[in-house]
Amino acid sequence: MSADSTVRVAVRLGAYYDSVVLMQLQRALSTLPGVLDAGVVMATPANREILAASGLTPSEEINAGPHDLLIAVKAESDSAAGEALARVDSLLQVRRGGGEQEFRPRSLASALKLLPEARWVLVSVPGRYAAGVADEALDHGRNVFLYSDNVPIEQEVALKRKALAKGLLVMGPDCGTAIVGGTGLGFANRVRRGNIGLIGASGTGLQAVTSHLHQLGAGISQAIGTGGRDLSAEVGGITAGQALDLLGRDPETRVIVLISKPPAPEVAAHLLSAARATGKPVVVNFLGLVPPLRRLGSIRFAASLTEAAELAAGLPRPRALTPVPSPAHSHPPPRERGTRLERSCWSPSSPGEGGGEGAGEEGRGDEGLGWGRSEAKVAPMAGFVRGLFAGGTLAYEARLALRTFLPGEGNTILDLGDDEFTVGRLHPMIDQDLRLRRLRQEAADPQVGVILLDVVLGHGAHADPAGELAPVIERIIADRGGSLDVIAIVVGTDEDPQNLAEQIATLRRAGAHVHRTVSEAVEAVWPRVGAGLDGREGARPALAVSLDALQSPLAAVNLGLESFYDSLLAQGARAVQVEWKPPAGGNEKLAGILARMKTL
Amino acid sequence: MSADSTVRVAVRLGAYYDSVVLMQLQRALSTLPGVLDAGVVMATPANREILAASGLTPSEEINAGPHDLLIAVKAESDSAAGEALARVDSLLQVRRGGGEQEFRPRSLASALKLLPEARWVLVSVPGRYAAGVADEALDHGRNVFLYSDNVPIEQEVALKRKALAKGLLVMGPDCGTAIVGGTGLGFANRVRRGNIGLIGASGTGLQAVTSHLHQLGAGISQAIGTGGRDLSAEVGGITAGQALDLLGRDPETRVIVLISKPPAPEVAAHLLSAARATGKPVVVNFLGLVPPLRRLGSIRFAASLTEAAELAAGLPRPRALTPVPSPAHSHPPPRERGTRLERSCWSPSSPGEGGGEGAGEEGRGDEGLGWGRSEAKVAPMAGFVRGLFAGGTLAYEARLALRTFLPGEGNTILDLGDDEFTVGRLHPMIDQDLRLRRLRQEAADPQVGVILLDVVLGHGAHADPAGELAPVIERIIADRGGSLDVIAIVVGTDEDPQNLAEQIATLRRAGAHVHRTVSEAVEAVWPRVGAGLDGREGARPALAVSLDALQSPLAAVNLGLESFYDSLLAQGARAVQVEWKPPAGGNEKLAGILARMKTL
Repeated sequence: MSADSTVRVAVRLGAYYDSVVLMQLQRALSTLPGVLDAGVVMATPANREILAASGLTPSEEINAGPHDLLIAVKAESDSAAGEALARVDSLLQVRRGGGEQEFRPRSLASALKLLPEARWVLVSVPGRYAAGVADEALDHGRNVFLYSDNVPIEQEVALKRKALAKGLLVMGPDCGTAIVGGTGLGFANRVRRGNIGLIGASGTGLQAVTSHLHQLGAGISQAIGTGGRDLSAEVGGITAGQALDLLGRDPETRVIVLISKPPAPEVAAHLLSAARATGKPVVVNFLGLVPPLRRLGSIRFAASLTEAAELAAGLPRPRALTPVPSPAHSHPPPRERGTRLERSCWSPSSPGEGGGEGAGEEGRGDEGLGWGRSEAKVAPMAGFVRGLFAGGTLAYEARLALRTFLPGEGNTILDLGDDEFTVGRLHPMIDQDLRLRRLRQEAADPQVGVILLDVVLGHGAHADPAGELAPVIERIIADRGGSLDVIAIVVGTDEDPQNLAEQIATLRRAGAHVHRTVSEAVEAVWPRVGAGLDGREGARPALAVSLDALQSPLAAVNLGLESFYDSLLAQGARAVQVEWKPPAGGNEKLAGILARMKTL
Repeated sequence: MSADSTVRVAVRLGAYYDSVVLMQLQRALSTLPGVLDAGVVMATPANREILAASGLTPSEEINAGPHDLLIAVKAESDSAAGEALARVDSLLQVRRGGGEQEFRPRSLASALKLLPEARWVLVSVPGRYAAGVADEALDHGRNVFLYSDNVPIEQEVALKRKALAKGLLVMGPDCGTAIVGGTGLGFANRVRRGNIGLIGASGTGLQAVTSHLHQLGAGISQAIGTGGRDLSAEVGGITAGQALDLLGRDPETRVIVLISKPPAPEVAAHLLSAARATGKPVVVNFLGLVPPLRRLGSIRFAASLTEAAELAAGLPRPRALTPVPSPAHSHPPPRERGTRLERSCWSPSSPGEGGGEGAGEEGRGDEGLGWGRSEAKVAPMAGFVRGLFAGGTLAYEARLALRTFLPGEGNTILDLGDDEFTVGRLHPMIDQDLRLRRLRQEAADPQVGVILLDVVLGHGAHADPAGELAPVIERIIADRGGSLDVIAIVVGTDEDPQNLAEQIATLRRAGAHVHRTVSEAVEAVWPRVGAGLDGREGARPALAVSLDALQSPLAAVNLGLESFYDSLLAQGARAVQVEWKPPAGGNEKLAGILARMKTL
């Protein structure tokens, strides 16, 4: 504070004001004569820091807490500051009384009587009241768009469990945006309608992707927000799981985009399983968590919001295929079988894609894995995955790729070339003794369903690794009566001394599935273990959200920010604004009295 | 152990044997009459566990440590086991004496007299002796391929610092593979020669990528291994940095691939800077760490080993452009200016790429950023990056993208829509008051060089965010006299109520650089801050490794595994095998005596 200015502060204890009213108060104060700056905030520590950074702290101590309103005025003179503060109540009054002509219900119940077809209730009241309002909406059998933030996570969990049991959606809390049946809720860009449905944890991620899709010429069917904590272990991705199921059934949606910060591992596995169960192509962008996989069946991973939009826009319309007869099995046939993707639409420019060495790699032959033919060959089954690797980097990449959908404890990837195994011992690329022993041990464990191996050819390596592995592989597969899959990754070239084609043929004759890259091998694991660890049934909510939720044109009741009500009307939706006030209670009574007292 | 078998064990205290000899001993023992299984290992805890898992533990306690040799035999009878153990010494002798006809030098010095043109020394002796041998090779002015593992990291740091000071390379320790001048060292696949040079932390990652490149029809110039710990903070990426510089000067190499586990943040920044300094296109795969960026100037990020190969193979040959005059500046002109990439060769299939809304987004216009035109506009400068975001997901993505090359403390991205800022306050997408205050504060800090902002349009958002930001942006840029860049990310569509084109134009008139995605905005930061934080000069070793290191045909001295010597000869390289034994010393004498004593 410079010598020629003064700061004075007023407090309103425990008073409730609409944030728009507060913003307008601040602006009005700033324009009063002699006023240099003004700040109007709830007195949280963060807000008080902000005031301080702007030189809006008075010299004396202020007695105010997070639920109290703090009004600070910096003026040229003490008298100018005092005059400004003296006008606070009238400024608040002017706004409060003015400009309301139409009748507005004062409760959700009466609003729903006015607009009974409303399937949605938008809630943007302050966080401490928001869960109560949302809960009331659920009791009325309505879906909730919960914009409010500062809602405790326990309240979020309770709301979402209740919604799940009732077959209703709770988007949020802290859900900034959504598009339902063509109408934007909260903050929403005007975008072309189309067949891409989105699910996003928060707000601006969805806005960025929907805007980019629009720019790319694509269109949006729905955009469902879940709130930033939905994919935490605590909430368990309840809303995201429901949303995947809903978009899976939505006839307008042909491609699904799922974006969020990295979920808790078990939530990620659940969502990928739910994504598969939709039977539709799904683009996933777990921000900052990009598995080294080209795809997982119907799922593609994007590295950025931009790439997510581009992958989704580049997707072809799925073509219906004749369903492939499924093997006898207790699980229902995967729904993806009705669809098929062209690989070329997914992969980045890869000039050699059509070429290769003609060694008949399964990686190439298995292109349809997860779709139709290949999945029909592979019965989904329970079982842990065990990796016995000679190559450290291959083991590392396999671990990264597998943990995307296999968070369980029982799945392990061992790097047998690690320092601890090679003291006085040749590297496993030369001496496979240790690996052969482990291979027999793992296979003897009936809980193990898949064994992953790498076979690295080249100068310096074992002269015939496949020849040494094959008899053991053949025996363990026979001993397990077909309940064990062995997947081998063969790294090498057609010029290597071991004879690549022969090595692959030897492994295949022994019963191993052969791939040429870690990505492809792990992708081949996905249909094998999915149903067993996180069955298709479990990936779907017991009570589905009704497709009514996606009604168009939309009808909704709005509590809180009037601008959201205005934008609903501007978009041609039907809406009712509730003239909401905090529920009357002991504290609120007190707050009302205190609000009339002014302190310096 | 079943009742009808017995296990007997012999120990050789502190004896040194070649691992190949030990493998052959184990195989020979296994085939003796009455023997069911045999294990020959150094008596480390890990190896003893492995023996135990195979039922190769005797009932009595064994007195042996990690440097002692443990020989275990499981046989049908005690006498069969005893007879097998009785043959251990003769089995070891047979191998040791046999099959050596040519003269073999017993020291590195005499080997180098035989083959003075050898630029490389291959070391695969046991880890505890390896650093000493490597150090001797450096003293002789030779580059080192250090296959040995179990070398302490302090020894690695010392070796690499010495090599750096001498302009020599140390690949490893634990370096499994390399290709130098067309010859594979250690484990190496036979691959087509070509113009892709690789740098990999470990072995099989390089083997997987080189093999895949070969399969794609591409060819390899060099493949340089660094060892798995090179990119740790402790080692600081010494070898990887030298290798980037070397491949940057290697006329055979036109595209560089860098693969490793995620480096220490400061090492990553250093290497990306070194990658830029090569002036060549670089594909980076930091396994499991994929920034949400399409590219950073000449650098592309791959999500997997497979994708790294595909990106490298898809790269066009760089075309020479007329150098663009550089602005007056103390830093030398960036070397990338001589080259230019076609964007279409990098991006995944993106059907809308040619379309868009014609709003004149800088994202589109700035395609050449980091190359030629755009970089000429932007003088590299020091300065921290500060982000003031309204969108949480946009802030999160920006943070992820920036930390790839800006690990520093001073670079911060603030999410002003976070719960702590929105208690009783409108979201910054509606009320920009707080952001305008922070904008002025950050700009007043002369250490700040770049301010990143998002501007999110759409229903519910501020009616004219650009109009409110523009005067502040214009003022702070003017106040800083051009030493501050403001980069805005505008998220919205041409149908949004705010008028997208007008919003962009307003920001541009105020002096902001405008992009449409976080990726593009962060990519635009890269050329601005690179030189200041980690200058081009710093990204290069003071004393460059001589191009002689890449000599072809290769000449090398090999100490350790004979199979590496054999494979050098098989590839037409000139090589000398040293008949290496551990250095004579007190312990070794003792070991020699003890080796003649046999214990049960």
